[in-house]
Amino acid sequence: MDIKRLYELSETADKILQGKLNTDINTVIPEIKELVSNFKQGSIGIAQLNPIVGDIEYNSKKIMKYISYATKIDLDLVVFPELSIMGYPIEDTIDRHPIIVEENIRWLKEIAKLTSTTTAVVGFVEPRFYKNKTGKKYYNSLAILSDGKIQGIIRKSLLPNYSEFNDYRYIEPSPVVGSQPADTLTMFDEDSIIDSNKTNIINGIKYGISICEDCWNNKSFFSSTIYDKDPIEELSKEKPNVFINCSASPSRAKKEQLKHNMLSFISENYKIPFVYVNQVGAVDNSSFDGSSRVFNREGVLLARAKSFEEQFLIVNPLQEIGKIYPLTKGLEKSLTEEKVFSLDYENDLERTYKTILQGIQDYFNKNGLKRACLGLSGGLDSTVCAVLLADALGKENVFGVSMPSKITSKESRSDAEQLAKNLGINYTEIPIKEMVDTTNKMFDNLFSEVETKWNCRYKKSFTQDNIQARSRAMYLWGISNEFASCVPIATSDKSELYMGYATINGDMSGGFAPIADVPKTKLFAFARWLNSNRTEKNAIPEAIILKRPGAELAIDERTGKPLIAEDALMPYEFLDEVIWRIENKHEYYQDMIESKFLYEKTHTITKEQKEEWLNKFYKRMSTSLYKWSILPPSVIVESRSINKYDYRQPITSSHINYKGTSSDDIKSILLSAKL
Amino acid sequence: MDIKRLYELSETADKILQGKLNTDINTVIPEIKELVSNFKQGSIGIAQLNPIVGDIEYNSKKIMKYISYATKIDLDLVVFPELSIMGYPIEDTIDRHPIIVEENIRWLKEIAKLTSTTTAVVGFVEPRFYKNKTGKKYYNSLAILSDGKIQGIIRKSLLPNYSEFNDYRYIEPSPVVGSQPADTLTMFDEDSIIDSNKTNIINGIKYGISICEDCWNNKSFFSSTIYDKDPIEELSKEKPNVFINCSASPSRAKKEQLKHNMLSFISENYKIPFVYVNQVGAVDNSSFDGSSRVFNREGVLLARAKSFEEQFLIVNPLQEIGKIYPLTKGLEKSLTEEKVFSLDYENDLERTYKTILQGIQDYFNKNGLKRACLGLSGGLDSTVCAVLLADALGKENVFGVSMPSKITSKESRSDAEQLAKNLGINYTEIPIKEMVDTTNKMFDNLFSEVETKWNCRYKKSFTQDNIQARSRAMYLWGISNEFASCVPIATSDKSELYMGYATINGDMSGGFAPIADVPKTKLFAFARWLNSNRTEKNAIPEAIILKRPGAELAIDERTGKPLIAEDALMPYEFLDEVIWRIENKHEYYQDMIESKFLYEKTHTITKEQKEEWLNKFYKRMSTSLYKWSILPPSVIVESRSINKYDYRQPITSSHINYKGTSSDDIKSILLSAKL
Repeated sequence: MDIKRLYELSETADKILQGKLNTDINTVIPEIKELVSNFKQGSIGIAQLNPIVGDIEYNSKKIMKYISYATKIDLDLVVFPELSIMGYPIEDTIDRHPIIVEENIRWLKEIAKLTSTTTAVVGFVEPRFYKNKTGKKYYNSLAILSDGKIQGIIRKSLLPNYSEFNDYRYIEPSPVVGSQPADTLTMFDEDSIIDSNKTNIINGIKYGISICEDCWNNKSFFSSTIYDKDPIEELSKEKPNVFINCSASPSRAKKEQLKHNMLSFISENYKIPFVYVNQVGAVDNSSFDGSSRVFNREGVLLARAKSFEEQFLIVNPLQEIGKIYPLTKGLEKSLTEEKVFSLDYENDLERTYKTILQGIQDYFNKNGLKRACLGLSGGLDSTVCAVLLADALGKENVFGVSMPSKITSKESRSDAEQLAKNLGINYTEIPIKEMVDTTNKMFDNLFSEVETKWNCRYKKSFTQDNIQARSRAMYLWGISNEFASCVPIATSDKSELYMGYATINGDMSGGFAPIADVPKTKLFAFARWLNSNRTEKNAIPEAIILKRPGAELAIDERTGKPLIAEDALMPYEFLDEVIWRIENKHEYYQDMIESKFLYEKTHTITKEQKEEWLNKFYKRMSTSLYKWSILPPSVIVESRSINKYDYRQPITSSHINYKGTSSDDIKSILLSAKL
Repeated sequence: MDIKRLYELSETADKILQGKLNTDINTVIPEIKELVSNFKQGSIGIAQLNPIVGDIEYNSKKIMKYISYATKIDLDLVVFPELSIMGYPIEDTIDRHPIIVEENIRWLKEIAKLTSTTTAVVGFVEPRFYKNKTGKKYYNSLAILSDGKIQGIIRKSLLPNYSEFNDYRYIEPSPVVGSQPADTLTMFDEDSIIDSNKTNIINGIKYGISICEDCWNNKSFFSSTIYDKDPIEELSKEKPNVFINCSASPSRAKKEQLKHNMLSFISENYKIPFVYVNQVGAVDNSSFDGSSRVFNREGVLLARAKSFEEQFLIVNPLQEIGKIYPLTKGLEKSLTEEKVFSLDYENDLERTYKTILQGIQDYFNKNGLKRACLGLSGGLDSTVCAVLLADALGKENVFGVSMPSKITSKESRSDAEQLAKNLGINYTEIPIKEMVDTTNKMFDNLFSEVETKWNCRYKKSFTQDNIQARSRAMYLWGISNEFASCVPIATSDKSELYMGYATINGDMSGGFAPIADVPKTKLFAFARWLNSNRTEKNAIPEAIILKRPGAELAIDERTGKPLIAEDALMPYEFLDEVIWRIENKHEYYQDMIESKFLYEKTHTITKEQKEEWLNKFYKRMSTSLYKWSILPPSVIVESRSINKYDYRQPITSSHINYKGTSSDDIKSILLSAKL
């Protein structure tokens, strides 16, 4: 059969189904159906869709459309991502507003009625209504639908509760893996478990179906596992012909590699092909990457859907029919090798770009937002943000505002202007001098009044600095108030957020923070990558990449020039390595003293210098936790982040001693505490 | 024996141990010891302490001091709250910075060495180091210490993961209840379980010891339970003489009643006295109330420690020796009765006051903060905040700033000034006119530029309003930058946050938000309660309580007077009841249409009016989720809150249909989606 033709036709069908091509779907269906008939037994449509979380009507309509398409082309099976009717993650909403769970059941039942010869696997939130209830109120479930009916229910056993995941808050782990009878819908309990035929036979092929985390607990693959149970191992006992896993798994640095290795290992280990369908699209901080895929029984990648795009992928894992898209570069490397800190970000930058782009697009589109405004300082952070926004929202929807103060250099202003010109975004310059002067004048009165009463004065040098940052944010929020659907952008990066080097109600303030999980050293590499890989080359003026970052809010007394951030903090290469060692290797102060930093291979630093920087790091980090907690939504990019919903540390933990105490000191401190 | 004398002496000892009285503890010890000797067998010291989360040295020193005190007065046992060495909740910190877990083990071992005849029960985070590890990395454990050694380890079985609790993220549930041998420390697994003697015999008395949530799963008391296992039931099988539970349980409206009923039920049901020791003090959003207590075998409350204060309570549950403090008013009411919405807040207001006061005090003290500044508008929100701050931090540490704009009435200014005078806090007035005018002028230029390029203009009426709120916040943050340890206060209340009726970088901005979980109707009652119950009566001018709230940011075109909030939103009594019905009864749109509101008993409203308000409510709430996510730390007060760590709903869920869709509509929508 003509595989190439099938791919062409299904790409056209994708465009029609996504509304990107205004053609009647019936012009392509007969030929696709004809081609599918050649490998009908075991044919699967992977519906890699982008839902809107909580918008049950929108999601259900889309699911119905794809079921009806799959039926028309006569596939055996069409599979949707985890919680496809509800969208993932729905979080505490299902507890506070249980009406939406009732609703998703009503829609599920109606969808079931409209199915016929093609079997659909659809995700939904299942309430637990049986008597003598113990446990959480819901299951995370899949329904097997065909011939106008629900044929079976599969419930998630392993519930992730780390990083951004919170499944266990409201979801009860299933006491059994695999499929259970349809009449258990909303009434399932341990007593109703049927312990045979937990696989699903569809047109003569036996499928072992699981949900997301259920396939992430292989005890041979992982050196340590979180759960006792391995649902895939249990399903394997019924010797299915094919594994299917319906997921909603967000993108993170290094995860693509891990996922590839793990799924390949599972299929090879059990000698069973593996079909993995993943949600695409972003929800607040999580950007789901799709990249659904199929492995054959030797663990060889047979087919892979696009990353960060909706796609309907037609495959037959038994006949090895599918479509291979280029893999993420670096997939051939082992994970162990990747665990070394490196400033060579090349493999990772394309995925970073797509993760953030989708994060911006979906936050805006799904919330009815359209435009963004941001301050253009001529510095790296706002520059990279501007490029990402232009690409995500369209250059016409981005407004760059240069807001020079008396400290802003001529070069910064012209760099900002040049960038805006190169990107083709809207641009204007509005000086903040008058506003800063007025505020300063009023501050003089106010401060002398407070000084008298409190009989003290702190005179932090950055009071004046912050007025500038806050005046700028005031302009941007003004634009947001005056022009519909326009969001001001917070431009802080990860390295500076770690150091609290960001102004509350200033550059930290906005409706969205695109690069809050991107460290500064990566931003330099990212800027160069953008210059090489976007259609319009070199949009970012070289001068912006070459200059040493600084907020241009204050003058360095020693140089008479604007203060350079690295002088106030520490070298970014050192700072980013500290962050990396904490986040990826769980290192602490003493570990780092003893480790040889990449930075130390190229720079000679004394032990005292290293200690000074580490002391400064921990001190600044301890008092920055509050700022992390009020950061606007951002996109999680790295393997670990400081996003408040991904990582949670009490603000009131500022006294933690990250260095530890010697045993002798512990003894004498305790002895002195005795009465 | 002279119980009254024991109480007097132990109150004195408390003051000495807390550093409030500069007397040698040895002046009271001999007499206390003599009195204790009368009921030595079964004597327990409940060390209701306020730890600093993560400050292991501080916590360990305090624990050591109290162990040594308990030993000197020759008690059988001294019990500390859950995770007493680490402080609760330590959250993800133990995963990101595992050094602190190693540290808490090192301190624990040294404390153990210094114990002698009195047994101490101390909480700590226990790493799981055994081979072939499955599960989370830590246990939440108690160590039984005496004679210079660890005698046994008790591990938490039930791990709460709802509301503000996140135990299950990093803690493994114990596979066994009760005490296991000391040599299992950090090396415990299922194979090492010893299934007998899980109670602890100390001086001839048998204790069944558990941790917090382990006592919250009684299947006769609760109509539905979260967990299968009931650790108390399992412990009861060894027929202990006394139950002990070490907790860290934060305060919430109605929880005091629930806790009393539950513990009383357990002790009566098993005919075993119950000793409950609870942490006191606040960590960020959670205010732990202490209120440790003892029930006798009939379920009668025998002793109760103070709420929101450190205390060392000497009891003997077998000889019914202890100290009863006044109970929270309303304890006699059943929970069922409390589930009716009511504007009668009387029983609850004292606890609200103490919860918030401790929340402010501990956030400030534990983070090295000292002073607060806030805008005084003459309105209810800022007024109540000012009173709470004056009481929490001392009036000399509070700065109230009146920042009138052209809309601010003369009455508002004089009310604000009078309030400051009554409270004795620092006060100044600084007009914002010049700053607002400058900003407005600059906005004109900026907006006409943007208007030209985007060829549209929104002209939201509140652009001008927001300039005022943001100018004010700029002054307050300026004070914070210029004067050490000074925090600006966000004054938003719960009702208005639900409606998004708060300005980002304006009144919503600050380092702490004291009343973010207090609804407006309660604030009115609270203001009157404060006027009656504080030492200085009637500090809040009556005019402030009587006026109808409004932000005084805009003029109502219909009246020519400042816009009244209820006119822009809906009556607060109605709004607060909607919030209450959603949070406490899980009601949705249609339920509320069909319910008779308290508001409807006193006001005649049409169905159309009710629908209009409900529509407005859901619409405004859906687009306010973003604001909730960037709110500063606040104190959780009500039975449910919108605190971002207590309740989490994706911002990108703005399309949820809270009304539901009819079955006929579902059918026709799905049919139209079919190809």
